[in-house]
Amino acid sequence: RTLRIGLIPGDGIGREVIPAGRRVLESLPSSLGLKFSFVDLEAGFDTFQRTGSALPDKTVDTLKKECDGALFGAVSSPSTKVAGYSSPIVALRKKLDLYANVRPVKTTAGSSNGKPIDLVIVRENTEDLYVKEEQTKDTPEGKVAEAIKRISERASYRISNIAGEIALRRQNIRSTSGVASVHSSPMVTITHKSNVLSQTDGLFRETARRALAAEKFSSVNVEEQIVDSMVYKLFRQPEYYDVIVAPNLYGDILSDGAAALVGSLGLVPSANVGDGFAIGEPCHGSAPDIEGQGIANPIATLRSVALMLEFLGEEAAAAKIYAAVDGNLDAAQFLSPDMGGKATTQQVLDDVLKRL
Amino acid sequence: RTLRIGLIPGDGIGREVIPAGRRVLESLPSSLGLKFSFVDLEAGFDTFQRTGSALPDKTVDTLKKECDGALFGAVSSPSTKVAGYSSPIVALRKKLDLYANVRPVKTTAGSSNGKPIDLVIVRENTEDLYVKEEQTKDTPEGKVAEAIKRISERASYRISNIAGEIALRRQNIRSTSGVASVHSSPMVTITHKSNVLSQTDGLFRETARRALAAEKFSSVNVEEQIVDSMVYKLFRQPEYYDVIVAPNLYGDILSDGAAALVGSLGLVPSANVGDGFAIGEPCHGSAPDIEGQGIANPIATLRSVALMLEFLGEEAAAAKIYAAVDGNLDAAQFLSPDMGGKATTQQVLDDVLKRL
Ligand SMILES: CC(C)[C@H](C(=O)O)[C@@H](O)C(=O)O
Ligand SMILES: CC(C)[C@H](C(=O)O)[C@@H](O)C(=O)O
Repeated sequence: RTLRIGLIPGDGIGREVIPAGRRVLESLPSSLGLKFSFVDLEAGFDTFQRTGSALPDKTVDTLKKECDGALFGAVSSPSTKVAGYSSPIVALRKKLDLYANVRPVKTTAGSSNGKPIDLVIVRENTEDLYVKEEQTKDTPEGKVAEAIKRISERASYRISNIAGEIALRRQNIRSTSGVASVHSSPMVTITHKSNVLSQTDGLFRETARRALAAEKFSSVNVEEQIVDSMVYKLFRQPEYYDVIVAPNLYGDILSDGAAALVGSLGLVPSANVGDGFAIGEPCHGSAPDIEGQGIANPIATLRSVALMLEFLGEEAAAAKIYAAVDGNLDAAQFLSPDMGGKATTQQVLDDVLKRL
Repeated sequence: RTLRIGLIPGDGIGREVIPAGRRVLESLPSSLGLKFSFVDLEAGFDTFQRTGSALPDKTVDTLKKECDGALFGAVSSPSTKVAGYSSPIVALRKKLDLYANVRPVKTTAGSSNGKPIDLVIVRENTEDLYVKEEQTKDTPEGKVAEAIKRISERASYRISNIAGEIALRRQNIRSTSGVASVHSSPMVTITHKSNVLSQTDGLFRETARRALAAEKFSSVNVEEQIVDSMVYKLFRQPEYYDVIVAPNLYGDILSDGAAALVGSLGLVPSANVGDGFAIGEPCHGSAPDIEGQGIANPIATLRSVALMLEFLGEEAAAAKIYAAVDGNLDAAQFLSPDMGGKATTQQVLDDVLKRL
């Protein structure tokens, strides 16, 4: 099988980590029977400044027509408002209907200082406040701006359904791997703020309950947690959580919080997942402070590559990459500066490739 | 000076901690020249079930006409939707125009396992998604619910202004107390998500920048942080932060996150502050799991009493309470179960009173 992968480095360290993602795909053992071809695509603030569009039509078209999946690096946000600019990743998620943003957060034997964490945040990726429908009025008391938070039954159902499926798949991997696990049975925690937003978050909550009540999820424990408590609990007992499903904005906030638990955003991958398509994307941003120095941590990208492969049905290839990355972290010989080490992007990558 | 204080225990452990709050006021040394009178007021889910209203008019009227300040315990949220019920504390904040929710989070010598934290979250308390303007439509694809997030220049200005004033006051207390401090100069960090919500959060950001650019704040460092990064940073380097100002919902989430850093929600106070009025409110909820056992931690309430007094201009009385509470925590002889101790609410209270 040959997979065609779009490469969208974007801005800043996106340009340093996406090439590492390509390398790990090229280096997978041929015994897996997988081949890859690549196409370079543009998006980001730099693209906006050159072309007037942060997400050229060509990028979207090529992804739709030619590609099986993609890797997205990062985009820099302008520090002041720039007319006409708006985040290309948010637009891409909507245009390709990548309705789930999947963000696993996991300690390895070496990286955990204390309790082992193994959770995944499944974030709705197309609506909520991210519909970006805003307006501003002038009033005698000054400006008043309003934004729409939209929650639909349809989007809430499909995100909860995929959260349930991820919970089952994780349980399946746990029980076949034989490795002792933090979790004895699959669990999904529904996050919302329905005590204040009874209609919108209320709809999310009820729909999630209904989706997860399906027969196929009968082995899944379903719990819920108000978003503010969820952040509290995430920090007090992260080892308790398995799959957390949340509307878009809460998912955004929770996943950065969860990343803090494992020491560095440089470790945390994500995948933007739709039906038959996935874009791997490291959770970190464009990191202007370290841009161009060759010291960006490639781990988040390498794990995002694996995550993309999982959602393209290539679990064996994904498992190889995860194991090589865990090997690198546990050996702790080649760690990038965000991890307290001194290794360059290239050295970390080489160490992971050696372990493939 | 005699201050009249409304007591609103609400539900659950609210009924166990609010009496402790009253006791600490009654026990303040007479040398302070302060007297207190009290009036018992109703609100909460229990009140709703008995009277059909979660926040009786009488409670609001009495607070407006008779009181200088109040203490609010907690309210329980029904576990399923109950027609006509809506949170009385959210309503109270709006009806009394208590526009700032002030939530200090601080380690004491005894409670810090690692870096000392001394920050305060200043949360806008009247608008954002808390305007609760929601509607639901039926569509061929199922229900679609929408909520309004409203951000006004006026509310953003006054919350940022009070955040700046709190930063100056904290600096003043630090420099006169002579105690070595984490912070060398006052700082306010503006939190928003203007990279997605350019109009609403953009307005909050710009207005906060403008408010904090006033001459009186020339000694205050002003920084900003996108809300997801803010959660990440809060956990990675909490010792760095001084005053964090945020729209309502982000403030809600951030303050629970910050509470997790100091070990227990049972330690974290808040004050709902308006012009000339303040309601002290522990950050924890009604805690149905420990209700009626007499083991609720009264510290959050005792600190909320002090915070209320600060905003009523009684800083000396507030300082006495803070010092007595810190003494209790550092001695660690009488700690409630949430802190790993075995003391009852009454024993913790007695120990604090002894130190007044
Ligand atoms: C850059 C920003 C628009 C984006 C988001 O909010 O989704 C980022 O924070 C993320 O989590 O991918
Ligand atoms: C109970 C709830 C409505 C409330 C809020 O969201 O403001 C609580 O979480 C708080 O922080 O005081």
